[in-house]
Amino acid sequence: QPVRQRKITYLLPAKNGEEQTMQFLFEIVDILTTYVRKTFDRSTKVLDFHHPHQLLEGMEGFNLELSDQPESLEQILVDCRDTLKYGVRTGHPRFFNQLSTGLDIIGLAGEWLTSTANTNMFTYEIAPVFVLMEQLTLKKMREIVGWPEGEGDGIFSPGGAISNMYSVMIARYKYFPEVKTKGMAAAPRLVLFTSEHSHYSIKKASAALGFGTENLILLKTDERGRVIPADLEAKVIDAKQKGYVPMFVNATGGSTVYGAFDPINEIADICEKYNMWLHVDGAWGGGLLMSRKHRHKLNGIERANSVTWNPHKMMGVPLQCSAILVRERGVLQGCNSMCAGYLFQPDKQYDISYDTGDKAIQCGRHVDIFKFWLMWKAKGTVGFEQHIDKCLDLSAYLYNKIKTREGYQMVFEGEPQHTNVCFWYLPLSLRSLPDGQERRERLHKVAPKIKALMMECGTTMVGYQPQGTKVNFFRMVISNPAATRSDIDFLIDEIERLGYDL
Amino acid sequence: QPVRQRKITYLLPAKNGEEQTMQFLFEIVDILTTYVRKTFDRSTKVLDFHHPHQLLEGMEGFNLELSDQPESLEQILVDCRDTLKYGVRTGHPRFFNQLSTGLDIIGLAGEWLTSTANTNMFTYEIAPVFVLMEQLTLKKMREIVGWPEGEGDGIFSPGGAISNMYSVMIARYKYFPEVKTKGMAAAPRLVLFTSEHSHYSIKKASAALGFGTENLILLKTDERGRVIPADLEAKVIDAKQKGYVPMFVNATGGSTVYGAFDPINEIADICEKYNMWLHVDGAWGGGLLMSRKHRHKLNGIERANSVTWNPHKMMGVPLQCSAILVRERGVLQGCNSMCAGYLFQPDKQYDISYDTGDKAIQCGRHVDIFKFWLMWKAKGTVGFEQHIDKCLDLSAYLYNKIKTREGYQMVFEGEPQHTNVCFWYLPLSLRSLPDGQERRERLHKVAPKIKALMMECGTTMVGYQPQGTKVNFFRMVISNPAATRSDIDFLIDEIERLGYDL
Repeated sequence: QPVRQRKITYLLPAKNGEEQTMQFLFEIVDILTTYVRKTFDRSTKVLDFHHPHQLLEGMEGFNLELSDQPESLEQILVDCRDTLKYGVRTGHPRFFNQLSTGLDIIGLAGEWLTSTANTNMFTYEIAPVFVLMEQLTLKKMREIVGWPEGEGDGIFSPGGAISNMYSVMIARYKYFPEVKTKGMAAAPRLVLFTSEHSHYSIKKASAALGFGTENLILLKTDERGRVIPADLEAKVIDAKQKGYVPMFVNATGGSTVYGAFDPINEIADICEKYNMWLHVDGAWGGGLLMSRKHRHKLNGIERANSVTWNPHKMMGVPLQCSAILVRERGVLQGCNSMCAGYLFQPDKQYDISYDTGDKAIQCGRHVDIFKFWLMWKAKGTVGFEQHIDKCLDLSAYLYNKIKTREGYQMVFEGEPQHTNVCFWYLPLSLRSLPDGQERRERLHKVAPKIKALMMECGTTMVGYQPQGTKVNFFRMVISNPAATRSDIDFLIDEIERLGYDL
Repeated sequence: QPVRQRKITYLLPAKNGEEQTMQFLFEIVDILTTYVRKTFDRSTKVLDFHHPHQLLEGMEGFNLELSDQPESLEQILVDCRDTLKYGVRTGHPRFFNQLSTGLDIIGLAGEWLTSTANTNMFTYEIAPVFVLMEQLTLKKMREIVGWPEGEGDGIFSPGGAISNMYSVMIARYKYFPEVKTKGMAAAPRLVLFTSEHSHYSIKKASAALGFGTENLILLKTDERGRVIPADLEAKVIDAKQKGYVPMFVNATGGSTVYGAFDPINEIADICEKYNMWLHVDGAWGGGLLMSRKHRHKLNGIERANSVTWNPHKMMGVPLQCSAILVRERGVLQGCNSMCAGYLFQPDKQYDISYDTGDKAIQCGRHVDIFKFWLMWKAKGTVGFEQHIDKCLDLSAYLYNKIKTREGYQMVFEGEPQHTNVCFWYLPLSLRSLPDGQERRERLHKVAPKIKALMMECGTTMVGYQPQGTKVNFFRMVISNPAATRSDIDFLIDEIERLGYDL
């Protein structure tokens, strides 16, 4: 009996395509819900690793090449199943590899709805509900930052790097609005400041926006990765003496590797003294504002001129969801608006102040708000707080477990400020080796080797990197709501199982 | 009997949360599939219009405000239903309002899978399948552009505006790589060229990247909205005489309002002569490359240095899906790479040339490729061609229907190059009015008035705008695969019904 081969032309908008469409969508949902179930099942792997050349050569029944002729719906279903099969389960309780982990069911439902609505954020006209949700949510976030009445402005952007880029653009517009029309030639030599431990997006922004990476001055940090304010002031004075104009300081609220929080109040004092824009990159740490217990780590954030805050990281919102918040109203609009007539008609029948698209550097803009709004509805503010407190408790558990454990060495002393726990694991053969070049070289290779074995086993995933003069170490981060103490224990056991004899 | 109130804490990762999770997801899918069915049903409205203040005050049972305490799952389902109810059905066969319309079922399935996979494009490590799909698809697109063997580079970006911004950045890096480190001060005064009819994103890029909008020279167009090459050459010579350096020319392949295609070959000749970067903004018109019948409109595109092409427009891929393609390998990477150690570790176990994230100005990057790849699999190249030919046929049908019809006046003469049909509708009272200030003023108000009535009736949606000295006119565009001749007829009837007596 031949296999039935349904064609794509059976689906809507085809005449009488309703039934076939519904059936096909339910078959897809069946694949997806099976995947969701497995994602949370600890007996399944986090990933089924294959090298690029293996996937490119084609796995059985799964061929990535595109062709001229259509495939059957049966093959499309196979393609979907295999795409998931050879991917990485980022919601698995033992996936710790990135700052964004977990699979929130409400957020997932929100994303499914968002794609079904398939609209664009540029105007109220075609996204009335989403535009209002964005405005209300941004206001709420500004209230939580601590700006009076939640006043100010903001927008959701495609990720923290773009949000940080916005902050530099807006600062420039505030101090040198003529750059918008005349270019950087209209400004003196401007310098920006950020810590050695800050995210590389500040550097990308310096390059892209025409400042140049050499005009981004890197600030020294203490051994915990926090900016030393005196170094900022010294470098500001030095820049001024050279005739440059210090314009912008980025303070990191939760650094990528160490999870360090720069001392915002002390930095704000210096910014006020020298009339510089203060941005807080809270892409990773901003979520701690939701926790009464931990928000003190961001004390002073209410003095910032702008804040990046990515709900898709610590708050568990599906990718992507990043906000840039601005304290002063009008500068975001002033910086970016071009008043395109075909989109932002002034003679619409509704209040056009809700056509927020002209504030963006994008034209079309994906709807990133709905999943976040829906999660907030479902969890309440208290739900986010519980999630964050739980993740920080778990990381404290990990820290306490390994800080004195045989074979571990912490990268910095003391309890981490965020969920980042940075450590070296020493195989037995390295433990008695004296500190020196040989030990460093061998230690540098340990984390990559364990990571490679981990991925090949597919049991868990955690990140590693060098930092400054420090050789490769593991950076454990916890943002996954599915993770428990048993998963932390599993990770440690797994590191020892794979690394002990290296 | 009290209504059952399920809590979000019943869902995964809760212990024994599987059954509740599956049930909740199926309830969501039920809401979504009902919406999909209605979207294609011509007896339903395109939208149920409400003013911002109405939605903000709260509709019955639907309140946008966020609160501290969680809502029940029952309320979440109501929230989802109402979000769709008060939104706009962008897939409705009579939604013609934007360049992106329609709801492709395979694309929708692809988006649902993408959100379930919830991963990030920066590394092969956590998005192996998607990274490879992106590479293969970009190569295929470059082949279609006409670059030998599909050589070159590219990346998917969050929309055409960002893709266009990439093109300016890459051009600057190619000619003045030192700007990356030293800023715009390291370059002479650079000027960019684009047509009066081009998309405003080129202007946004000029402002953002530090060129300044005054250094973006606008080129004259013919009455069809196509760049006059002689004007480009004259302005290049003029700029050089002033001591400026002409660096970049944007040629539009399908302009936003008129759907005009600039003469790429003639522009390319000038770019070669004066050593300027040629970018083709094919965000809207790039899809025509898929059609053997229409691709000649982009003749010369293979001579471009970079191309923007948005599959989410003419090819019906769900939002967002935009590619920037670059002819020369290495410049995209060179321009943007910062080699962040925590993400792009050089000592991974796999071939790290597949870690493509450092080419981006973003760090995290949404997976925009899968839906497009899946649609290509399902339709084949021929399926896209059929869709595009059909849309252009429909617009020819509209053009022929109204070009000599009583009460219509075309904005420009001759058959449109793309699916854009631009026209004024004249209410009876205006038809005998002589040309002059009064007629212009009254005509300017007609399209907004009809549009407002249309939205309040909710029967169909089409865009309008002024352009240069031309008062408000309708811009009809067709990219919706669900649209048929009867929908075009309906639109015309509706315009006449609402506008005849104005």
